[in-house]
Amino acid sequence: MIRVGILGATGYTALELIKLLLRHPEVELACLTSRQEGNPHVADVHPQLSGRVDMVLERLDPSAVADRVDCVFSCLPHAASASAIGPILGGTTKVVDFSADYRLGDAAVYQLWYGQEHPDQDRVGKVAYGLPELFRKQLAGADLVANPGCYPTAAILGLAPLFKAKLITSDDLIIDAKSGVSGAGRTAKLLTHYPECNESIMAYGVGQHRHTPEIAQILSAAAGSDISVLFTPHLTPMDRGILSTSYARLSAGVAEPQVMNALREFYEHEPFVRVVSHLPATKHVAGTNFCHVTAKVVGDRVIVLSCIDNLIKGASGAAVQNMNLMFGFDETTALV
Amino acid sequence: MIRVGILGATGYTALELIKLLLRHPEVELACLTSRQEGNPHVADVHPQLSGRVDMVLERLDPSAVADRVDCVFSCLPHAASASAIGPILGGTTKVVDFSADYRLGDAAVYQLWYGQEHPDQDRVGKVAYGLPELFRKQLAGADLVANPGCYPTAAILGLAPLFKAKLITSDDLIIDAKSGVSGAGRTAKLLTHYPECNESIMAYGVGQHRHTPEIAQILSAAAGSDISVLFTPHLTPMDRGILSTSYARLSAGVAEPQVMNALREFYEHEPFVRVVSHLPATKHVAGTNFCHVTAKVVGDRVIVLSCIDNLIKGASGAAVQNMNLMFGFDETTALV
Amino acid sequence: MIRVGILGATGYTALELIKLLLRHPEVELACLTSRQEGNPHVADVHPQLSGRVDMVLERLDPSAVADRVDCVFSCLPHAASASAIGPILGGTTKVVDFSADYRLGDAAVYQLWYGQEHPDQDRVGKVAYGLPELFRKQLAGADLVANPGCYPTAAILGLAPLFKAKLITSDDLIIDAKSGVSGAGRTAKLLTHYPECNESIMAYGVGQHRHTPEIAQILSAAAGSDISVLFTPHLTPMDRGILSTSYARLSAGVAEPQVMNALREFYEHEPFVRVVSHLPATKHVAGTNFCHVTAKVVGDRVIVLSCIDNLIKGASGAAVQNMNLMFGFDETTALV
Amino acid sequence: MIRVGILGATGYTALELIKLLLRHPEVELACLTSRQEGNPHVADVHPQLSGRVDMVLERLDPSAVADRVDCVFSCLPHAASASAIGPILGGTTKVVDFSADYRLGDAAVYQLWYGQEHPDQDRVGKVAYGLPELFRKQLAGADLVANPGCYPTAAILGLAPLFKAKLITSDDLIIDAKSGVSGAGRTAKLLTHYPECNESIMAYGVGQHRHTPEIAQILSAAAGSDISVLFTPHLTPMDRGILSTSYARLSAGVAEPQVMNALREFYEHEPFVRVVSHLPATKHVAGTNFCHVTAKVVGDRVIVLSCIDNLIKGASGAAVQNMNLMFGFDETTALV
Repeated sequence: MIRVGILGATGYTALELIKLLLRHPEVELACLTSRQEGNPHVADVHPQLSGRVDMVLERLDPSAVADRVDCVFSCLPHAASASAIGPILGGTTKVVDFSADYRLGDAAVYQLWYGQEHPDQDRVGKVAYGLPELFRKQLAGADLVANPGCYPTAAILGLAPLFKAKLITSDDLIIDAKSGVSGAGRTAKLLTHYPECNESIMAYGVGQHRHTPEIAQILSAAAGSDISVLFTPHLTPMDRGILSTSYARLSAGVAEPQVMNALREFYEHEPFVRVVSHLPATKHVAGTNFCHVTAKVVGDRVIVLSCIDNLIKGASGAAVQNMNLMFGFDETTALV
Repeated sequence: MIRVGILGATGYTALELIKLLLRHPEVELACLTSRQEGNPHVADVHPQLSGRVDMVLERLDPSAVADRVDCVFSCLPHAASASAIGPILGGTTKVVDFSADYRLGDAAVYQLWYGQEHPDQDRVGKVAYGLPELFRKQLAGADLVANPGCYPTAAILGLAPLFKAKLITSDDLIIDAKSGVSGAGRTAKLLTHYPECNESIMAYGVGQHRHTPEIAQILSAAAGSDISVLFTPHLTPMDRGILSTSYARLSAGVAEPQVMNALREFYEHEPFVRVVSHLPATKHVAGTNFCHVTAKVVGDRVIVLSCIDNLIKGASGAAVQNMNLMFGFDETTALV
Repeated sequence: MIRVGILGATGYTALELIKLLLRHPEVELACLTSRQEGNPHVADVHPQLSGRVDMVLERLDPSAVADRVDCVFSCLPHAASASAIGPILGGTTKVVDFSADYRLGDAAVYQLWYGQEHPDQDRVGKVAYGLPELFRKQLAGADLVANPGCYPTAAILGLAPLFKAKLITSDDLIIDAKSGVSGAGRTAKLLTHYPECNESIMAYGVGQHRHTPEIAQILSAAAGSDISVLFTPHLTPMDRGILSTSYARLSAGVAEPQVMNALREFYEHEPFVRVVSHLPATKHVAGTNFCHVTAKVVGDRVIVLSCIDNLIKGASGAAVQNMNLMFGFDETTALV
Repeated sequence: MIRVGILGATGYTALELIKLLLRHPEVELACLTSRQEGNPHVADVHPQLSGRVDMVLERLDPSAVADRVDCVFSCLPHAASASAIGPILGGTTKVVDFSADYRLGDAAVYQLWYGQEHPDQDRVGKVAYGLPELFRKQLAGADLVANPGCYPTAAILGLAPLFKAKLITSDDLIIDAKSGVSGAGRTAKLLTHYPECNESIMAYGVGQHRHTPEIAQILSAAAGSDISVLFTPHLTPMDRGILSTSYARLSAGVAEPQVMNALREFYEHEPFVRVVSHLPATKHVAGTNFCHVTAKVVGDRVIVLSCIDNLIKGASGAAVQNMNLMFGFDETTALV
């Protein structure tokens, strides 16, 4: 049994994390923090937890949290997260970071895309990326894990096996992704005000979304060569789910069966990735830690379709999966 | 041809009003105001109007607006609206007030429900209530019209004919109403943040909603005796529409055919109210100035079902209908 | 460990049931049936189960199912369900019936509302009603349980404690309920075709819904006197959830604190009912077996607001809760 | 004043068409047909028209319709439409065909994609394509117009000006399009059953959608060379709207300002296409005949974003625009 704490527990990823942890037989929820005044009860912030969790959200220093728990989940914004985590590490407390701070392996790339110097440059490039399907070995026993972005998870799970198998070329990749609105977080703003985004779909951050270098980095590692990505996210009128429609150019002579076989072989023993032969819908994985993926060849291109629940496999489910690996629990605990 | 101006043109009712006025052959849109800095182009605030209206939103005194137009629509919040309108009146400019300021006939009731003294008490009780189906004569040629609330419009159109015909009793009325989220306005807040209110329905303001005294006042006038109302609004996951499900007690011996006949006779010549024999859905009137109404008798109660588009018949369509009456245009101009 | 089978496994309640049973440590899913030809794989019918359940849907006689399992869940339509269940009972197999067949205690009432003779009249009136909050003792060890309707569950949980405590009168009860579209089942029809019911709310079955006598029967038992109910269901544009807004008349002298206290005392030790002080939203209980309930007094009436997930506490979660009681498992297993 | 008739008036495009025609001062709605028995009243089929249109749907031969009207809109399915239209033409009745029958210029291509011989091969290749922004001259006075598909309209309006100006290359075009569910028609089926497609997005018809050759044909004409298109439509959880996200490769040396200028110049005098500098959302054009389009250059690709209301500019609004041109009315009548 381990004690866990959550930094920044007011948002949607924290809520999903708490709900998953309530099912985890090896976990005791010990500490929740927020910047809100007055130590509100968690059920006042998340009515979903009424009568299920009797805790308040405390204004605590990260180090005070670390003293009380074995594992910290940081749901803080980027930069704030690294600043909070840095002092915790080095002791006995392990950390899963939901922010982007430790995902990128290059501090200059971080500075370029996030507009500020990285607050903990020494660790950059040395942190395990929390996608067990690609990096399970590094995650087992790790002290700090960079939980992947939601879009990268959906896209990478569809594409990495094809890059690894050299079935697609490195120079022509377009990812057109569609996300539910919860991906934009819980802060009320005009863009995500219900009458603005309901019954409407739009692209945003075209060519500028911060998940772009993260996708490129992981896929480049899979391909063994530099991949550049054209990534277009879309805000879709639904609570949850990401569908990633990726367009890649096939290597010479490759046909659909090889592509499907590569996916099937790669994920044969994976607990949470399903290669399906139908066209997957985000609803098929909503509320679960599963990723459904398929591929269709049209001409010299392959269209890879992969979908996840952005808050589960794209955030809190992945975090629990990572925690399970870090602490040596069965990887699927609390996730099936 | 008249010139019109809109005070407070950034919200949803103003957008719908502009779209309706663009179709009105007797109207020239002359002036739009907002409190925003920098005179933003209306299409920056309402992208729906891109290339359709080439105007900026100005920070103007209401009197400066009055100097330029024949008709002012005030989409300002309550209290602010009366404060802005007061100085305009008395000249040649007519006003349609979207706020609640001139709807209630008693300043004390206003103070009780709106928590402040009425800013223009002299006019209270002397302003025409902009529901043509009940008050057409007072509206023709009026200089100031209080545009009704959205919930009151839906509820009153279903119930007033039955009170007038003495088919229902005055002492037992429950109105359970369901509104789309646009009724909550355009200001982003947690309650109406998409992932909060999507896929969810809830009651709000139980027993405390400010439309309660407005409904009671107009129905009391229809009944010729005091009506008390138990009114429960619900936030419904859709952009638009109000369904009012009203439960009234039948007078002795009344059966369904009499109820339906009373509705049909009352609305026989009305351009925008349809008495239907099926159960109406808000989608049937979405985007229109129509109200669909029906009634079902169960035991000694009648259930009256009426629905409108909260932004059209419940706000901007009604305002245009009122303007048409105030200026002697055909009542249905721009509305069919 | 028990083996379970599901009759009629193609619908939404069966899907939710399977997902819950996958988490149940004492249950082995042994058998799924449907009337479809060709024994389709369950994942072809429910893509959500891809790679999670490797079973086909078989065309089997209920008795053949009974031979293979310890517990049968019947998700068949009414009448078909009793016809299938009858032959099973009497042996060692226990049954949870999702249909309405064994809910009503009077075969004549059944015939009146369901338009046909009851196919198994001998058992009518002798079957435990699967609402543990009211009938836990009868459910423990029962061989056959009538799983409650979704609307009745939401309404009864809010009202029964108040009838039991004599805080509300028996002669004036209105229930205005709002349900997500999954409540209408999985058969495609125009009413529930997406572009018809999306962005729209409507009442249906006014005064005629078959859950009416079920609600009346259970509340009458709670009150100790005949309760008549005016029940109006509404089709609401969301997948899941029921909000029941009930209007009851207070007994003389009763005020809000007494009402809230009665609810709190009644549910003090209940694992799945939460008495909250805020106004509950269906989203707060979506995907869970919880019911949130509160009450507001306005004048001489109390408005009771209760919400559940119609597919979980309103169907499959309740069924698992009942199975837990029937087999002596911890009541909350697989449900928290 | 002309008389018009609609063949196949039960669907969504017919409903929108009727609503638009009600606003048209030069049109009298004379005749509606359907295959339904019993001549249902149009308001029983489309409750939106209650009290607005007093007509029945008749089972009529197309030639009987032609005898009574000056203009026929055919909302029949492909093949059925050409079979119905053929006999009408040659007289004084003009026809706007909503089906795909006369869009493609090559009967062999039609047979390949629609799986049957074209029923009226003589006319194939001689019919004006109803996109006024590209073919206004051919449409003026035409007797038969092929109303474009919804996806082609959205995609072509974004891309044709860039092909015409040689700013993009012909050999690398991907169109990732997202459509609301009304695009799937009004026939109830599992795919579009509310609880199936709500809160979910999925691709369908990957590489196989019948709008593919239509897009390719029109863009090839614009480019003056063969364009091949990889087209992926997605079913999006909203009633209406298409967003087309197109990825094209820039010709050497082309930068974003040239792209935007080409769009602005091409549409400078168009009444219904707006080149915007923000990222457009489908909600911005919902319920209108407008198309909003913009472009972003990222690396050597341009992402063209264009959106329309699939039922208006993508169907019935375009049909009215075409009728206006065919009969010499102002092109924007009934559309602004």
